Formats: sequence, structure tokens, C-alpha cells
Amino acid sequence: MGTADNETLSPAPSSPAPSFSQRREWSQDQAISYLMAQGIENPDCLSLAAGFVDFETLPVELSRKAYAELLDDPQTARKYLQYGTTAGSDRLRDQLIKHLAKLEETTVEELGIDRNQLVLTTGSQQLLAILADVLFDPGDICLVAAPTYFVFLGVLAGVGAEVITVEGDEGGIKVDALEAQLEQLKQEGILSRVKMLYLVSYYENPTGVSVDADRRQPIVDLVTKYSTDHQIVLLEDAAYRELRYDGPKLPSLWSCDPTHSQVVLAQTFSKSFAPGFRTGFGVLPKSLVQPVIDRKGNEDFGSSHFNQNLIATVLERGWYEDHVFEVCENYQKKRDAMLAALAEEFSDLQQEVSWFVPHGGLYVWLSVPEKLETGFNSELFAYATNVEKVMYVPGQLCYPHAERKNQMRLSFGVLNPDGIRLGIARLANSIRHSLK
Amino acid sequence: MGTADNETLSPAPSSPAPSFSQRREWSQDQAISYLMAQGIENPDCLSLAAGFVDFETLPVELSRKAYAELLDDPQTARKYLQYGTTAGSDRLRDQLIKHLAKLEETTVEELGIDRNQLVLTTGSQQLLAILADVLFDPGDICLVAAPTYFVFLGVLAGVGAEVITVEGDEGGIKVDALEAQLEQLKQEGILSRVKMLYLVSYYENPTGVSVDADRRQPIVDLVTKYSTDHQIVLLEDAAYRELRYDGPKLPSLWSCDPTHSQVVLAQTFSKSFAPGFRTGFGVLPKSLVQPVIDRKGNEDFGSSHFNQNLIATVLERGWYEDHVFEVCENYQKKRDAMLAALAEEFSDLQQEVSWFVPHGGLYVWLSVPEKLETGFNSELFAYATNVEKVMYVPGQLCYPHAERKNQMRLSFGVLNPDGIRLGIARLANSIRHSLK
Ligand SMILES: Cc1ncc(COP(=O)(O)O)c(C=O)c1O
Ligand SMILES: Cc1ncc(COP(=O)(O)O)c(C=O)c1O
Repeated sequence: MGTADNETLSPAPSSPAPSFSQRREWSQDQAISYLMAQGIENPDCLSLAAGFVDFETLPVELSRKAYAELLDDPQTARKYLQYGTTAGSDRLRDQLIKHLAKLEETTVEELGIDRNQLVLTTGSQQLLAILADVLFDPGDICLVAAPTYFVFLGVLAGVGAEVITVEGDEGGIKVDALEAQLEQLKQEGILSRVKMLYLVSYYENPTGVSVDADRRQPIVDLVTKYSTDHQIVLLEDAAYRELRYDGPKLPSLWSCDPTHSQVVLAQTFSKSFAPGFRTGFGVLPKSLVQPVIDRKGNEDFGSSHFNQNLIATVLERGWYEDHVFEVCENYQKKRDAMLAALAEEFSDLQQEVSWFVPHGGLYVWLSVPEKLETGFNSELFAYATNVEKVMYVPGQLCYPHAERKNQMRLSFGVLNPDGIRLGIARLANSIRHSLK
Repeated sequence: MGTADNETLSPAPSSPAPSFSQRREWSQDQAISYLMAQGIENPDCLSLAAGFVDFETLPVELSRKAYAELLDDPQTARKYLQYGTTAGSDRLRDQLIKHLAKLEETTVEELGIDRNQLVLTTGSQQLLAILADVLFDPGDICLVAAPTYFVFLGVLAGVGAEVITVEGDEGGIKVDALEAQLEQLKQEGILSRVKMLYLVSYYENPTGVSVDADRRQPIVDLVTKYSTDHQIVLLEDAAYRELRYDGPKLPSLWSCDPTHSQVVLAQTFSKSFAPGFRTGFGVLPKSLVQPVIDRKGNEDFGSSHFNQNLIATVLERGWYEDHVFEVCENYQKKRDAMLAALAEEFSDLQQEVSWFVPHGGLYVWLSVPEKLETGFNSELFAYATNVEKVMYVPGQLCYPHAERKNQMRLSFGVLNPDGIRLGIARLANSIRHSLK
């Protein structure tokens, strides 16, 4: 028998495929999968695409010290090796309240939250996913700035939510555009389907921009105003909050909601400490605590208790702040290297190519002429990866329906300054080539 | 104004409640929440209820050695502190293939799976939850043995699945009962809604029983036979597999499906090593790999990479097997203590009280006369917790609709032999009191 015959016979009649859920259909074809596949297929490329954090500043020494402490006394060590609770370690949650008070430049008393409003998750990603689960029925609406964090777009697709984008600029989401959109939804009679406004408030992934200080209170007020028959949850994703290099110190959106009943604040130790411990957290309005815990109870009934205690130790001993300072110093150099390289390499293309200057985070958002597409199937992407050997994230992944195709996300997370300079030079060559 | 007035006014008109998803409704009122609340309200009780593992044998020394190795070389240490992949560390997955080959008493070659069929999760719980997500639409059917692992019943409720129970006995689920049930579903024309058969195949939580060796192949064959228009997935939850104290060495259900296209094998390091690292895994039929990874990509895009590497080191260095041996020796003593105490304390109640003898795991399943209810609201539970100061898990939690109310799950996980003896004495007093 020939191969063709064999193939015809091969799916044994005894094993048909499983029949999947609607949710499985919705969670297919994620941008992140393409991206990772591209990364694997192009290992020889300089990566301006990878979402990894800087290797050099990962806390090897601090982790060693913290582990030594955690395992020093067998009696307490065993507690850390045991199951914790679904919401997470009290020790870490208590430390987090102090830490938040510092970030918010206030006192623990003024902060006015209690430990039970904090839920520790597997990265902050898990918090985003759980909130989507407990809020969205298929067809419910999430408002987002455009572009936005593409993994969250995948989460929203995965629960069958409809995404409505609101325009932004260098100051983040535009207040008047948000108001117009909410008003329109009200006029259309579908405000009842709007469950959430999602914003990456600091040094956004992918644009690097932050929501301007003077837009913050108005945004919270708008969400409150349009929360008539039910509360529209404002999910403030502050993943990059602590990676601030210059520019103003911005108050959180969360702090603009003094009753803490409307805004969820999501943060993570992935960027400021180490993603390998997968520890993030949410500060939740009281109404959301039990729903989130119930869902997490089903998902895993608690993230790594040991890792939570490791981070508690690092905070408790005062090691964290110095570490973050060092991390920021290092990223600042890398950001500066990227900005300088962009200015230099694109000096002849000032009309065609533009970018935002980020004051923190890991990303620079680059726009090229409209006619130049950047997607995985574009000529530019092919040339960049195959000829120049440099990879970026196509900007269209960061729009729910690939609305704009002439942008890209550049990361200075993983390369060192020399690598960044070389990467930008290669990128400039690619763009110049494709513009011809 | 009096308190009542204040309460009437207190929900500020500016902050109505969020409007939750259907899924949030379904994930409310979980047994585990009641149980944890009871545990917290009764801290002075001896706990035969807690699902914790033994404290004494938690691997403090091994963890210390493993961490030292992981952090020894800064270059590799940084890799472990970085993000991993969604599916998990290649290093651990390679070790797991070797480990599985040993458990299955075969060679890596004979085992015939590749690394990509292994997915590492946050405990094995996360794998169970993800499988439920990708398989069940509301109203779809899961077959389970009754009683079964109550947290998974919560997961099924959370996705709106319908649970159909199949009778079991000391040999696990009954083959003829399973066949009758499948045939009935076929006759009713709703076989297309049956997505999964879930079985805890070794030393079940809650009954302590295993599926008999001679029932294993017939069960797999039945599932294959009734997988006509789509594949019914057999989820083999082997959480307690490695905690074997005596009795026969049982082949996995997974090994009865030599093409590995029908059975998912879920295992965990929570019971045999340390739950604090939250590391479990699944061996998946190829058809399920991408669906599971896509969903996990949304949920957290990877569990703790550092913890995965810690366990890889423990396996790689050959430390794991000795550790499991020690853990089993210790549990065996505790199981023996519980069985001896039961025999002694209930010697006058031999007609009324019965239990299964477990050959592994952490649990003994006790039945009392039908008229004696064991639930949270029963007289027995109140007397046990308030007067005798002992806690157990009411058996009805382990049935989807609390079908039977005269059973209880006793755990020898956390107490030492003296505590176990005292706990059983108190329990016997409580039962004797309530039988009067
Ligand atoms: C904007 C944003 N939010 C959340 C996350 C989730 O990260 P983690 O789960 O590691 O906290 C990321 C990671 O890249 C991110 O960029
Ligand atoms: C039968 C069974 N399956 C799965 C689990 C999940 O445990 P883990 O997520 O720690 O692997 C448990 C834990 O108690 C269990 O009893």
C-alpha cells in the first residue's frame, strides 16, 4: 500500500476526535502562539519581540538569601512547603499592604484596605483571566484603549466577549472619546452589557505610554457615572508601574476611587523581581473578592505558597526596594540606547517613522507609513527575519481586529545596549528596504 | 438614625454591584469554602478533615539542596528565574518521561510519548479545570464514580456541566453499572453530550479505594466503544498513585489505552513531594495538547518555571525516589494507626459502622447507619466539633446532589499517630452519642 492509502486508513475508527466546548473554539489562534512559533522558527534573530525581562538583573543572589532564610528553620519551612489558602499567604498580603502604601505615598491606615481584599495569583495574568471569567457572558462588552495588551485580547476572545476600542494618544486613552463611546452605548441601550473598562495605566504594553495624571480622575468618574444599573469594573493593569525611569510619578487610577469599590488594581512581581516565581496580585473591591476566590478555588485553589513566602521575605527584609532601583537603572540605560539608536538610524526617515518616548516599562511603539504593513505575512516581516535577522511584534496583534497594520512593538527587555543598537540598525535597514 | 436605617442607606447609589457572569453563579457555594470556614471556626478541633499532607515528611532538606544547585551558577539560575513556556520546562518534562516509564514499569521507548504531550500545571487541579473548560459546554455530561473528589464536582458545576454518577464498591467504579449507564444515555440519544468519564484511579479521594486491576481494561474499552461520534475523554486522576503502602501494584488506566489517544493521565507532586510548589502535570492525547495549552495561555501562560526546575533537579539527582519511600513509610504507620483505632473504638458498633481499608492515599471512608446524618447541619457534626472537638468531612459533599448523607471522609494526612488515635476516639464518642 502506498502512503496515501496509509493516510486514509490512519485515523482508526476507534478513536474519533473529542468534541470541544465553545470556549475551546474561542481560545484558538492566539497571537501569542504565532509569536512564540516565530521566535522558535527564527532563533538566529535578534529579538526586539520577546516579552522576557532583562536577564542580567534577575535576582540570583537575593533569591539565594531568601531561600536560605525560608528553609533555615524546619518548622516554619514546612509551613511554606504545605498547601496555602486560595487567596494566598497572609504574610505576603500583609507585606503588600505596606508596599502599596509606599507606592501610593500614604500610610497603611489611610490606604484603608484589609488583607482580605488582596488575592495572590499566578502572575497578574491569572487575575485578568479570572476577572474575565466572573464578569463576561458571551456577547458582553469590554472597553479597551487601542492598541492594548494582546494577551488580554486573547482572554476576552476566550470568554466570547465583544471588545470595543477607544482611541488613545501619548497621554493614554482619551477622556472625550471614552465619554462619547459610553454615551453611544447608552443611547443604543446596551450599557447593560458593558462589564469592564481595561486599562494598562503605566508604561503600557505595547505603546509605552501612561494615562496622563489629569485624565485619571475623569476616567474613574466617567466609569462611575455610567455605572447606573450595575457597576462597570475598571481593571487597572499596573504591571509596569514599578519600572519608572523618569517622568512624573503618577497616582494610580485605583487611588482616584477612594471607596475602592470600582477599580481593581492588578500588579505583579514578574517585571520588578522575577517572572519565574509567577507571583502577582489584585486589590479588589469587596464585591469581587468572593467571586474571584471561588473561581480560583476551582482553577487551582492557590498559587505557589512557597514562592509567595519567598517574596514576602524579600519585602520584609527591605531587599526589594534596592533591587527595583537597580533594575530601573539598568532598563533606563537600555531604553536610552533604544531611543538613541532610533533617532540615529531613522534620521533620514523622520517623515515616515515615529515613536512614543516611554518613561518606564519595556516597550517602544513604532509607526511606519500606512502603506507599509508589518504583520507576520508582510514583506517587511519576512525581510526583517530572513535577511536582516531581527524580530519585532507586529502592531496589529494589539488591536482586536487588526485595525491598524503599520505599527510595531519594540522591546528593550531582553537585549543589552549593544544588541539593541544592532537590532534597531537592522530594523532600519529592513524598513528602508521595504519602503523602496 | 438607628442601625436599620443606616443599613438601608449604606449601599451608595453611586456604586451598584457588578453584574456577574453565569459562570460566577455556577461557581458559588463550593463545598471547599464551607469546609475551610468550618476549619477556621473550629481551630481547637483535631482535624480528620484537613486535606493537608503530612508536615513531618515535607522535604526541607531536599529543597535546600535543590535550591543551592539551581542558584549555584548565575547563568543557569537566571534562566530559571525568567518566564518559561506555557507548557512548562523541557527539563522537567524530560525527567517526567523517565519517571513515568519507571512507574509504568517499562522503558522510555516503550512508553511511546513525546515531551510535547506533557503539560505542566499549577498542581494537577489546574489541569482538571482546564480540561473541563475546553470540553464542557453548559449541559454537557460528565460521568463520575459516586462518591468522588468534591473539588472536581465544583469545577464541573462551575462550567455548567451535568454530572451523572455511576455506582462503585471496594473495587472502584462498577463495570456493569458503567456499561448500563452509557447504554442508557445512548438509548436516550444524548451520548453526544457525554464529554468525559472522570475517575480517581488510585486510593481515591474520598473513599481510599482503587479501581481493581481487572476492571481497568474493560473500563477503557467501554469508553472507546461508546466513543462513536466523538471521543469521550477518560480523565484518570492519579493524584495518589505514588502513595502506595501495600496491596497490588496497579497498571494505570492510561496504560490500557496503548495508542494514548483516549485517556488523560493527571499526576501531581503535591502529595509525594510538596504542595507548596504547586506542580502537577498531565499526559495528554495529541488531540488535547493544543486546546489545553491555548486555554492555559489565557489563564497564566505558564506555572512557576523556577519550581518546575526545582522538581527537575530532585528527579535528576535521584533524590525523589528515596523521599517517596520515606513518605510512604510514614503514611503507612498513620494509616495503620487509624485502622487500628477504628477497629478498637468501634468494636461495639460493628453492625452500625463500616469502612474501606485503603492500600494507599490519605483517606478512610466511613459509613454510619442511614438514619444518622453527618452533614454540616447535622447533630453529629455539631456534637463532634463543639463537644468532642474533632472534625471530619461530611460524605455528602462528595456526591453531586448530596445523595447520601450517612458517610464521612477521614484523613490521616496531617495528624500524627497519637492525634489520629485521639481523633478516632472522639469521633466514636460522638457517633455513640448521636446514635442514642
Ligand atoms: C500589560 C501586562 N499585563 C499583565 C501581564 C502579565 O504578566 P504576569 O502574569 O507575569 O504578571 C503582562 C506580561 O507581559 C503585561 O504586559
Ligand atoms: C483526587 C485529587 N485530585 C487532584 C487534587 C489536586 O491536587 P494538586 O492540585 O495539589 O495536585 C487533589 C488534591 O487534594 C485530589 O485529592
